[in-house]
Amino acid sequence: MNPILLLDYAGVAVFAATGALAASRKQLDIIGFLFLASVTGIGGGTFRDLILGAPVFWVRNPDYVLICAVIGVLVFFTAHMVESRYKLLLWLDALGLSAYSAMGAAKGMAVTGSPTVAVVTGMLTATLGGILRDLLAGEPSVLLRPEIYVTAAMAGAAVFTLADVAGAPLPVSALLAFAAAFIVRAGALKFGWAFPAYKSRPGRRPEDIP
Amino acid sequence: MNPILLLDYAGVAVFAATGALAASRKQLDIIGFLFLASVTGIGGGTFRDLILGAPVFWVRNPDYVLICAVIGVLVFFTAHMVESRYKLLLWLDALGLSAYSAMGAAKGMAVTGSPTVAVVTGMLTATLGGILRDLLAGEPSVLLRPEIYVTAAMAGAAVFTLADVAGAPLPVSALLAFAAAFIVRAGALKFGWAFPAYKSRPGRRPEDIP
Amino acid sequence: MNPILLLDYAGVAVFAATGALAASRKQLDIIGFLFLASVTGIGGGTFRDLILGAPVFWVRNPDYVLICAVIGVLVFFTAHMVESRYKLLLWLDALGLSAYSAMGAAKGMAVTGSPTVAVVTGMLTATLGGILRDLLAGEPSVLLRPEIYVTAAMAGAAVFTLADVAGAPLPVSALLAFAAAFIVRAGALKFGWAFPAYKSRPGRRPEDIP
Repeated sequence: MNPILLLDYAGVAVFAATGALAASRKQLDIIGFLFLASVTGIGGGTFRDLILGAPVFWVRNPDYVLICAVIGVLVFFTAHMVESRYKLLLWLDALGLSAYSAMGAAKGMAVTGSPTVAVVTGMLTATLGGILRDLLAGEPSVLLRPEIYVTAAMAGAAVFTLADVAGAPLPVSALLAFAAAFIVRAGALKFGWAFPAYKSRPGRRPEDIP
Repeated sequence: MNPILLLDYAGVAVFAATGALAASRKQLDIIGFLFLASVTGIGGGTFRDLILGAPVFWVRNPDYVLICAVIGVLVFFTAHMVESRYKLLLWLDALGLSAYSAMGAAKGMAVTGSPTVAVVTGMLTATLGGILRDLLAGEPSVLLRPEIYVTAAMAGAAVFTLADVAGAPLPVSALLAFAAAFIVRAGALKFGWAFPAYKSRPGRRPEDIP
Repeated sequence: MNPILLLDYAGVAVFAATGALAASRKQLDIIGFLFLASVTGIGGGTFRDLILGAPVFWVRNPDYVLICAVIGVLVFFTAHMVESRYKLLLWLDALGLSAYSAMGAAKGMAVTGSPTVAVVTGMLTATLGGILRDLLAGEPSVLLRPEIYVTAAMAGAAVFTLADVAGAPLPVSALLAFAAAFIVRAGALKFGWAFPAYKSRPGRRPEDIP
C-alpha cells in the first residue's frame, strides 16, 4: 500500500468523521450523518477531479462512499462519548486537510504537469470538503476564522509541488507535504498562529452605506 | 412517452416551481423567479451528469431550460393565489424529490453499472436542487429540518437499484422508486415521521469552547 | 489582442478584485484574500466550462490564477486607501458581470450552437462568481438584493446571442453585449432601476405555519 493511497483513504475517513461530527452538533438523524459524512469526505476530491477533467474517483471506486457510510454510522453511535466534539472535529479536519493538500497537488501535477495548477488543486481539495460541510450544516465557515487554515493547505500543496519538481520520489513528496501542512495547521490550533489580518476597519453593512 | 422521460420532465417542472415559490417568498423580481426556478429545476441533474462524466442534459436538450422559464413566469403571476406557498413548496418538493431519486439512480446505474454509485447519484440528484435553492434563497435548509428528507431520496434510489438489479423493466423500477420515495416523504410531511435524531446534546458554539 | 480575450482578462481581474474587497471587509489574512480573489475571479468560468464539457480555462492556462493572486496581494496592500470599499466592490462587480455575460454567451454559442444554452451560460458565468463570493464570505447575496442584477447578465447574454445569430462579427457582438449589460447594471446602481418585484406578501417563517 503506497503512502499516496493511504493518505487518500485517511483523508476521506477523517473528513467524513468531521462531517458526521457536524451532524451530531446539529442533532440530525442517522441519514443526515451519512449525508454530511459523504459530502465532506468526498466533496473536495470530487471538485478536483471535475476540474482536472479526470473521472471522479468514487465513481470508479465506490469503496470511498462505503468508507464514508461506515464512518457516519460509527460516529452516530459513539459521538456522545467524545467530550469536546468541536475540538475533535478541528483536529480531524487538520489531518484531512494535510492528507488532501498532498493528494490534490499530486493529482493536479500528474494530470496537467503545471506547478501552478498543482498548488491550486492541492488547496482546493484540502479546503473544499470543510467549506461545504460548514455551508450545509450552517456552521461558521472555517474560511472566515481568524486562524490559519487555507494557508496550511497552501503550504502542503507548495511543498509537494517543490519536492516533485526537484525530482523527489512521490511518497517522499507526499509525506513532506503532509508534514508541512499539519505542522502549520497544528501550530494554528495549538498556539493560535495567525498572519497579521487585514485590520484597518471592518466592512460597513450594506444598509449603512449612503 | 416512457415513464423515465415523464419523471424527468415532472421532476424539472415541480422543482422549478419550488424555486419560483422561494423567489416569491423573498419578493424577488421576475428574473429572480427565472433564476431560482432554473437553478432548482436543473441543479441536481447538472451535478449528477458532471459527476458521471455524461454530457449535461440541458446542454443537449435546452427544452429543460425553457420549461423552467415558463414555470418561473407562471408562478410569478399566480403565486399570490396560493394560500400557503410554503406548504405547496414542500409538497411539490416531495414530488420532485421522488421523481429525481428514480431518475438519478437510473442514470447512475446506466452509466456505471455500480449499485453503490446508483444509490448515491439518486440521493444527490433528488436533494441537491432543493439544497441549492435554500442556500441561494437564504432559507433554512431542508437538510437540517428534523423530518425525514434525505432518507426519502435514499429509499427511492435504493428501491430503484434493487428492482433494477433484480431484473425489473426500467419503467417498473422507476415507478416503484417514485412510489417508495413519495410515501416516505409524504409520511414525514403529513404525520411527522422521523428517525430518532442524535439527541445527547447540541453542539456548543465555537466561542464557548475553552 | 482580440476583444474577447481582453474581456476575459478584464472579467477575471475585476471579479478577483471584488473577492479581495470582500476579504478586506471580513478582515481576513493575505491567504484569505488570495482565496476569495481566486474563487470569485475564476469560479463562474469554471462552472461554465464544466457544464459545456470544455477543459477548464485556467487548467489550460494557469496565468488566470496568477492574475487573481496578483490582484489579491495588490488589494491587501491598498484596500485601506479606498473610501467606500463596498461601493467599489459593486462597480467592479458590474464591470466583471458585463464582461462575463459576453464571454459566457460566446463560449456557450461556440461549443453548442444553441442560443438558449448561450443565454444560460452567459448569465451563469456572469453571476456565479459573485454568488460564490457572497456565499463564502457570508455577505448578503447579490441575488437577493432588490435591484437589477441577474437581469443585467441576461441582457448582455441575450444581446450577444442575438447579434451572433444575426451574423455580427465576434468582437462586435461581444462589445455590444458588454455595453448592454453594463448600461442596465449601472442604471440599477446609479438610479435604482428595478423591476416591479413580487410584492403581494413576504413568505411566513416556517415556524409560523400551522
